[in-house]
Amino acid sequence: MQSQMTDGKTIILRLEIDTDKAQFGKAATAIEQVKGDIVAIDVIHTDKNTSVRDLTVKITEQGAAERLTEALRSVPGIRLLHVSDRTFLLHLGGKITIQPKTPIQNRDDLSRVYTPDVARVCQAIHEEPSKAHTLTIKRNTVAVVSDGSAVLGLGNIGPYAAMPVMEGKAMLFKQFADVDAFPICLDTQDTEEVIAAVKHLAPAFGGINLEDISAPRCFEIEQRLREELDIPVFHDDQHGTAVVLYAGLLNALKLTGRTLSEARIVVCGIGAAGTACTKMLLAGGARNVIGIDRPGILSADETYDHPMWQWYAENTNPERRKGGLKEALEGADVFIGVSAGRLLTREHVASMAPDPIVFAMANPEPEIRPELVEDIVGVIATGRSDYPNQINNVLCFPGIFRGALDSRASEINEAMKLAAAEAIASVISDEELNRMYIIPSVFNAKIVEEVRRRVVAAAQQSGVSRRQLRD
Amino acid sequence: MQSQMTDGKTIILRLEIDTDKAQFGKAATAIEQVKGDIVAIDVIHTDKNTSVRDLTVKITEQGAAERLTEALRSVPGIRLLHVSDRTFLLHLGGKITIQPKTPIQNRDDLSRVYTPDVARVCQAIHEEPSKAHTLTIKRNTVAVVSDGSAVLGLGNIGPYAAMPVMEGKAMLFKQFADVDAFPICLDTQDTEEVIAAVKHLAPAFGGINLEDISAPRCFEIEQRLREELDIPVFHDDQHGTAVVLYAGLLNALKLTGRTLSEARIVVCGIGAAGTACTKMLLAGGARNVIGIDRPGILSADETYDHPMWQWYAENTNPERRKGGLKEALEGADVFIGVSAGRLLTREHVASMAPDPIVFAMANPEPEIRPELVEDIVGVIATGRSDYPNQINNVLCFPGIFRGALDSRASEINEAMKLAAAEAIASVISDEELNRMYIIPSVFNAKIVEEVRRRVVAAAQQSGVSRRQLRD
Repeated sequence: MQSQMTDGKTIILRLEIDTDKAQFGKAATAIEQVKGDIVAIDVIHTDKNTSVRDLTVKITEQGAAERLTEALRSVPGIRLLHVSDRTFLLHLGGKITIQPKTPIQNRDDLSRVYTPDVARVCQAIHEEPSKAHTLTIKRNTVAVVSDGSAVLGLGNIGPYAAMPVMEGKAMLFKQFADVDAFPICLDTQDTEEVIAAVKHLAPAFGGINLEDISAPRCFEIEQRLREELDIPVFHDDQHGTAVVLYAGLLNALKLTGRTLSEARIVVCGIGAAGTACTKMLLAGGARNVIGIDRPGILSADETYDHPMWQWYAENTNPERRKGGLKEALEGADVFIGVSAGRLLTREHVASMAPDPIVFAMANPEPEIRPELVEDIVGVIATGRSDYPNQINNVLCFPGIFRGALDSRASEINEAMKLAAAEAIASVISDEELNRMYIIPSVFNAKIVEEVRRRVVAAAQQSGVSRRQLRD
Repeated sequence: MQSQMTDGKTIILRLEIDTDKAQFGKAATAIEQVKGDIVAIDVIHTDKNTSVRDLTVKITEQGAAERLTEALRSVPGIRLLHVSDRTFLLHLGGKITIQPKTPIQNRDDLSRVYTPDVARVCQAIHEEPSKAHTLTIKRNTVAVVSDGSAVLGLGNIGPYAAMPVMEGKAMLFKQFADVDAFPICLDTQDTEEVIAAVKHLAPAFGGINLEDISAPRCFEIEQRLREELDIPVFHDDQHGTAVVLYAGLLNALKLTGRTLSEARIVVCGIGAAGTACTKMLLAGGARNVIGIDRPGILSADETYDHPMWQWYAENTNPERRKGGLKEALEGADVFIGVSAGRLLTREHVASMAPDPIVFAMANPEPEIRPELVEDIVGVIATGRSDYPNQINNVLCFPGIFRGALDSRASEINEAMKLAAAEAIASVISDEELNRMYIIPSVFNAKIVEEVRRRVVAAAQQSGVSRRQLRD
């Protein structure tokens, strides 16, 4: 008996009805009592004594699904087999499928795509391994790899439970950028074993998108794989976030009349994403970045056990400021939060420089809700889709991998990430730019092509492209 | 400059033509001189000074492609960029693609297949891991895994060059049995590393099809993975061959009025396939099987370094016969060759019992060509598509995995393999059965459904099914 349900719009009830003592009217009455509306009945199976039907029911009342399933369980002659909602139905059997590009209709087709003729293609790759990039799926295929150790806000739920996220990501890759992506969820969380597994499965792929791997393991895994593989390895939680943040920040700075080099920027939450964001800011020319985490402001005057904090202290905070969040924020131009919900107060924001820029990206609850500070900020952005200015990785990864695959890049480097961020920012024209619109929607059709174009150019200029593209 | 070509029908020449000193007529003349026929011209790209065109040319003469490309290279103003044939063109960019099952057209779709709603699906699997079989691609997805160590007749060509075969196999899985299959070519040939990699990537998959892994490593890899994973692991080179051979043998025995338990059977070539075939014969009730390899007839009176030969000697040859191929074959009912081309002579076959059964399955050259013994055999089968009675794994693997996935089987056991073989044999009715038709064509539409049906039943009877199927 499955029972996943929301109080959301539509649920599907699968009922097994004993046709001898059928009491279907009682089922209909139970549905009416929760103000449910039967919108469809599908007969799934019938035999002499039983009939299995799917009832699609619209419900609106809070808790109606639970009350209804309870009521149905007491109707004689009716067994409730399943209750599903649309989200669960969308996931039945998984969300992606693998298709041949050409049909195999006869022996001639078979002999070309398989033995004996395929042997000539194998031989050609054996003689010149770089041909794998043109004669196999490597040309257009990315592995979406997770070990399930830090999935969404759910934490360490393991590889099986992580699959729906990675399948969703594979859908987005295809839908937005025509990249074939396949989800690989690894049944190990040992750093060395993860590295070994990804290295071993790499031949089929033109790129590796690491996803939802917990810090600090994600750093070593990404770094080692970047060194040891000749295809791009990109931890989206770090770099995807950094690219989109940077894109939003470029437009926010423009809008409030600031420059990156002069802005005083506070980064709150020095984990994987916070560090990646900071590296991009520094690469882009930021000079006054301050990091803050549990020990307070990170400063080169201190030493830290956490290697990431130590790196951070040594590479930021040129004025060697000390103190906590309050001290960090006084007079700051930009707040970048990748920390925890409700960490920021209106007083904090009020103490910043005039027209401050606030990126409150904690998920699902931002560091501060926009409505609390709307009147005193220059720009505010969050990770949520129900506020303006959503910082969403979907803006980055499809296009950046499209560009990396098209240029057959050996890596995704800083230049390509900066190019992607500039591309995303550029999609909003000066006329369109306003405090409610510093970052485009993920459904903006221009994004992928613009990101791709600039990423290809950056790959060529930085010498990591392995293919000459006419354009 | 690529240059893969056959003397076969159609080649595509990509020419870059300098439009200032264009001599296209000379190119056309060169094509005429080898009796080539230009059937299509496609303009790929033009700019001020150059034009790139694909010329599709039909050729028939032996060596014409080579002579033509040489001639074209000397035409002034024309550069030959590529020569491809249809097989290579079919492989451009790989042969499979990954598709979302539903489009993501708006934010509502996005929130169901990805964050935030996908979190509920993840949570449901986290709470009850067996739901991975219904809510992820695990339900219908098989990994086609190779390390490229024994690919077709090409030998150890490595993982990159093995990809076209595994992609072809993935196409066949989909086309014949609607199984989603993804090619994984591992960049290691260390037995332990292969085992670890497959174990680690298993969560996404409902089954593992091992392919083209060299003996004896394939035995340990398969055995360990069968023990350590809870999904079917099936080395197709062993068991696929064994199942289809067994199917053909059932019909050949019926046709020549023999029984498996009384037939004297000689197996030549005691490697991975030979051992797997023998195990099926013994499981099916064969009692008089003799193995022969480099040391001659394998007998329990001897000891062997090769562990497979030792096992074989201990479990076959009940009469403890001695000698070579000649001695083995005298009076034998059945010859099963998985050894090397041209190993068998007409004299060998003539020394067998009347109406002998010969399975000469060495590839691409069988142990003996059918035309040499057609008049003195009862039945002869080979691995080739240009003779009757082709023993082809494509008859087995799509249906057996379809059945294993549909019953959510934890393994593919002997009972399921025997059921698959009986299903394949049963597709030919008694009326149809004759010495030129003991095994159906791979394009026979009944096969997959019949194999599936019997494999599902065998999985349930043998207790490895994890799902109750109405049927």
